[in-house]
Amino acid sequence: MLKKFFGSNTEEKNGKIISYHESINYMYEKVKKAQMSNVADRYEAMEKIRCKFCKEGISCQLCSMGPCRITPQTPRGVCGIDAHGIVMRNLLHKTNMGLAAYTYHAREVAETLKATAEGKTIYTIKDPSKIDLLADILDIDQSLELNEKAKAVAEKYLQLLAENRESTLVEKLAPESRKEVFRKLGIFPKGPYQELVDSVTRGMTNIDGDYITLALAALRNGVASVFGSLVPLELMQDALYGTPSPHEGEVDLGVLDPDYVNILPNGHEPFVGQALIELAKDEKFQQMAKEAGAKGIRVVGSIETGQELLARNNLSETFAGLTSNWIGIEYFLSSGAVDVFAMDMNCSLANLKEYADKYKFKLVAVTNIIGVPGSERIEYKPGNEKEVAEKIIKLAIENFKERKASVKPENLTSYRQKAIVGFSAEAIINALGGSLTPLLEVIKSGDIKGVVALVNCSSLGNGPQDKLTVELAKELIKRDILVIGAGCGNGGLQMAGLETLEAAEKYAGEKLKGVCKALGIPPVLSFGTCTDTGRIVMTVVAIANALGVDTADLPVAVTAPEYMEQKAVIDGFSAVAMGLYTHVSPTPPVTGSDKVVKLLLEDVEALTGGKIAIGDDPVAVADGIEAHILKKREALGI
Amino acid sequence: MLKKFFGSNTEEKNGKIISYHESINYMYEKVKKAQMSNVADRYEAMEKIRCKFCKEGISCQLCSMGPCRITPQTPRGVCGIDAHGIVMRNLLHKTNMGLAAYTYHAREVAETLKATAEGKTIYTIKDPSKIDLLADILDIDQSLELNEKAKAVAEKYLQLLAENRESTLVEKLAPESRKEVFRKLGIFPKGPYQELVDSVTRGMTNIDGDYITLALAALRNGVASVFGSLVPLELMQDALYGTPSPHEGEVDLGVLDPDYVNILPNGHEPFVGQALIELAKDEKFQQMAKEAGAKGIRVVGSIETGQELLARNNLSETFAGLTSNWIGIEYFLSSGAVDVFAMDMNCSLANLKEYADKYKFKLVAVTNIIGVPGSERIEYKPGNEKEVAEKIIKLAIENFKERKASVKPENLTSYRQKAIVGFSAEAIINALGGSLTPLLEVIKSGDIKGVVALVNCSSLGNGPQDKLTVELAKELIKRDILVIGAGCGNGGLQMAGLETLEAAEKYAGEKLKGVCKALGIPPVLSFGTCTDTGRIVMTVVAIANALGVDTADLPVAVTAPEYMEQKAVIDGFSAVAMGLYTHVSPTPPVTGSDKVVKLLLEDVEALTGGKIAIGDDPVAVADGIEAHILKKREALGI
Repeated sequence: MLKKFFGSNTEEKNGKIISYHESINYMYEKVKKAQMSNVADRYEAMEKIRCKFCKEGISCQLCSMGPCRITPQTPRGVCGIDAHGIVMRNLLHKTNMGLAAYTYHAREVAETLKATAEGKTIYTIKDPSKIDLLADILDIDQSLELNEKAKAVAEKYLQLLAENRESTLVEKLAPESRKEVFRKLGIFPKGPYQELVDSVTRGMTNIDGDYITLALAALRNGVASVFGSLVPLELMQDALYGTPSPHEGEVDLGVLDPDYVNILPNGHEPFVGQALIELAKDEKFQQMAKEAGAKGIRVVGSIETGQELLARNNLSETFAGLTSNWIGIEYFLSSGAVDVFAMDMNCSLANLKEYADKYKFKLVAVTNIIGVPGSERIEYKPGNEKEVAEKIIKLAIENFKERKASVKPENLTSYRQKAIVGFSAEAIINALGGSLTPLLEVIKSGDIKGVVALVNCSSLGNGPQDKLTVELAKELIKRDILVIGAGCGNGGLQMAGLETLEAAEKYAGEKLKGVCKALGIPPVLSFGTCTDTGRIVMTVVAIANALGVDTADLPVAVTAPEYMEQKAVIDGFSAVAMGLYTHVSPTPPVTGSDKVVKLLLEDVEALTGGKIAIGDDPVAVADGIEAHILKKREALGI
Repeated sequence: MLKKFFGSNTEEKNGKIISYHESINYMYEKVKKAQMSNVADRYEAMEKIRCKFCKEGISCQLCSMGPCRITPQTPRGVCGIDAHGIVMRNLLHKTNMGLAAYTYHAREVAETLKATAEGKTIYTIKDPSKIDLLADILDIDQSLELNEKAKAVAEKYLQLLAENRESTLVEKLAPESRKEVFRKLGIFPKGPYQELVDSVTRGMTNIDGDYITLALAALRNGVASVFGSLVPLELMQDALYGTPSPHEGEVDLGVLDPDYVNILPNGHEPFVGQALIELAKDEKFQQMAKEAGAKGIRVVGSIETGQELLARNNLSETFAGLTSNWIGIEYFLSSGAVDVFAMDMNCSLANLKEYADKYKFKLVAVTNIIGVPGSERIEYKPGNEKEVAEKIIKLAIENFKERKASVKPENLTSYRQKAIVGFSAEAIINALGGSLTPLLEVIKSGDIKGVVALVNCSSLGNGPQDKLTVELAKELIKRDILVIGAGCGNGGLQMAGLETLEAAEKYAGEKLKGVCKALGIPPVLSFGTCTDTGRIVMTVVAIANALGVDTADLPVAVTAPEYMEQKAVIDGFSAVAMGLYTHVSPTPPVTGSDKVVKLLLEDVEALTGGKIAIGDDPVAVADGIEAHILKKREALGI
């Protein structure tokens, strides 16, 4: 697959193409010339020495009797587990990580909401309606004063994370038809902490060697993740920082102006970034920056933290937009325009010290779990956000002097792209005049054939950064299928210009184009980050409820055309548990077990209504998705 | 290493030696002849195709940009992580599993205690003093009635599992000197659920790529595990089923009498096994068994569940002792004497259906997480233990008829070994007349040079089953070092006859022999299962407190001569966090990083006082341990 992109023909013409985006290819050449280790070169080098067994998922390193790999001579590991068990257990380990990560994030949001309600943070509750909604879900007295209610919500939620019986949140949030499926399959989860304890234990040596019970555990993790962690997480983030609503943002490497003190919050959590945007407005700091020779201080969003900020903040003097997604990190960090790279949660690369040293910026870890060698730790805890942001701003201003004195910045001003961002279920309903009916009507009429959620990382595993993501999205909207974007892939779609009104004109099918024009929306709607998977699921649930059908009956699908890490894996299982057709690429490491492949790609459909589809060709993938959508339309009689 | 044992010389003489124990070697020949897949043959086959990268820990399969392996041409994974990060992260994943497993077990015990206190189970509180102790630790009103107090204890503990701040249990249970170390290193944990969420998240792609912060996280998991999960777990189990006290038990394959209906609880949790022992006494069931042609019904403990039962139950009409440890499973299941293999938690092999079919027994999973293909699930939940036990007994009686009709059992009666079991800190103090002083005196005098906790699985990774375990224990007691046994290795020590009064005569050094005689104890004291690591740590803490020193100052050490799975890995980190010299074999998959090796084998000593030692030769290992003990004695001036 990769030869096509990394081969000599393209190199002769344009240099090596590592990305769909010109800016990244441009910076790749610079980084290459500077002989810096970078993700594209590392990928190419690794491609020559891949382990066949690891690639197929039939390698196990858990115990001291191993490592084991499955061959015709060794059909079972030393412990007695077979290929099917190993493959599915390896995949379960990844869902455990995804569940843990979303739960970590949810807990941090709840603690921040609690501290905010107690008046201990600089944040205020921006969207009280979300507190009301949460209070309703959690059986909290609606007559309480806002902050008291918010506190009760946060505390109740923190308790429910540890609920050791059928999850109240799943009971309250999942549609009846789904709950039936969950109970029938034994995948109705307890609270996320309990599922994590059970599932991590299950994944040990000599416990579960049955690919079917392991797959059910992965699905149960998926249900726990979406209703136990993701949906409450987003509701609480909306409460704290406001529910996103459509507005114009700017993306790509040109948002970096080297003449400013540039602070790049990177990761997935909005806490420090939001504090930075507020605090940077302080005239005192802007003055300090000017005295250091800068035009001012700017927060420039990076990957998913940037996406969170973009969804809720207009461009302003202190917020400049979004650089790129995770594959872009090394390339924008070598711009010579960065002062502080402030890392929360994930994804930050482990090798960035080399870049910080050469391009003179500071690495700051704002969460305890980040471990990037060479970084300084300034840890966020609810209540100290002002102090953290101040320290980072001062560090950035100091750094600016050194950077200006020693690094020649790249001129990236031509790489700027507008995007309409900030969609949400509420925003869509508002745009439609207060009800889902107009959307349902255009779906029923076939003006919109169906809806596809593109939730994604970005990966070189199936070609250049964002290539399949963008080409598939174009292929879908051409077929009058509305696309909802979330995750790092959403950043790719933004950079490619697909989240503009013009994109409808350029790329959408005639019918979708008409709908976009009528509603004033792009053909690809920005739903935010990978964390917003819950937001998407609740939108799908709302549509299903409005139509009076199960989620599995809808003309919708999910695609992760460039899944990379473990949150994407759990999202995949969440989607299948919800009864959704779910395309993923690159092909996950499951090919070592024909039974697991058959289960995930075929047999699971009879159980949940959802299934996994694979494939790396945008037209073929779109064919599969469209066929599924048409089948569902036919069954609905529309 | 293995050639020595699996080579042709030994085979010519005795057949292949796969175990220290004659019974297992005998049954291995039978299983081999029957062409059954078994752990020893699988190990031998796998040994020919090991992956060098997995063995050294420098292989990563987490994301879609991988799999990656570290070579001179690829010094970093695609994501940018280096060999040190990969090695330590792979090890952290294992500690996560260990922490989860012990926490799972602790939660199940707490739920059982709660249900018992509410009168919902057939159990009663056998040791109220442990409830008082727990009430003291957890600040529960001591004046409450016993069951109310027990309920309050269980509920409080269940809350503390989710404690999202410095753990109350660590605060209450750890010595002051250790707490200082934990705080200084930033490894003072929160509640186990929170550490699990953090640590599983940390172990994802692109979060922590720094081997030092990863190692600290593993140590923090170790502290959370021992004080947050293990110690409370054992206190609660003692409360429920009685605190072990020394008594005679019987082990080895000869405890299986094929003329009885034999039910083998296997795993680590005592709930169902205890219920079975009680219920099997019922004349109604014994009568049913006799009508089926059996002499009666017997519970025969298997691996660690068996060890739990052995520690707290005298041999009786319905309890026959312990078969073997986990390596023995396939060999005792082919005895033709088993009716039901009742599996809880871990360790049950995934390939047992083949055995159940051939040797006519039933596989029953009594916990949700067990996934052994071909097993029937009869899930234990506090309150249904009678029902579960009844179902299993009836199933076993039915099975007996079929087994008797179609399987010729092996004659294993010669393989029986007595062992004194049931030691605990309390039992030792009782044996010493109510105080630790006599023990401290013999340590001070040098009659006991030091104490080594041998906590262990059993592994073929460094030779035959239990060979290094037994030989090392012999080497230690010869040098007047008292050995405390726990885990599957403890089973091996029992089978080898080391937990008898005669063993002191045969194997102990002159001084230790004198102490054993005077106190009437074996030179190797049975402390139970791997779960009893907490019991051992609290004994060490008690000794340190009595001497007024830190745990790191004591002439004690830990060894895991045949570690196998992930609970052993977390135990190792717990021990190092407690400041203990900790020998492990086989060498864990860390050799791909010189920095990680240096950190764990050397540098960590300056941080916690503890460190890891490796080695597969019993004399050399004993030399290292003895040198450490002598150094500590010298420092104490004794």
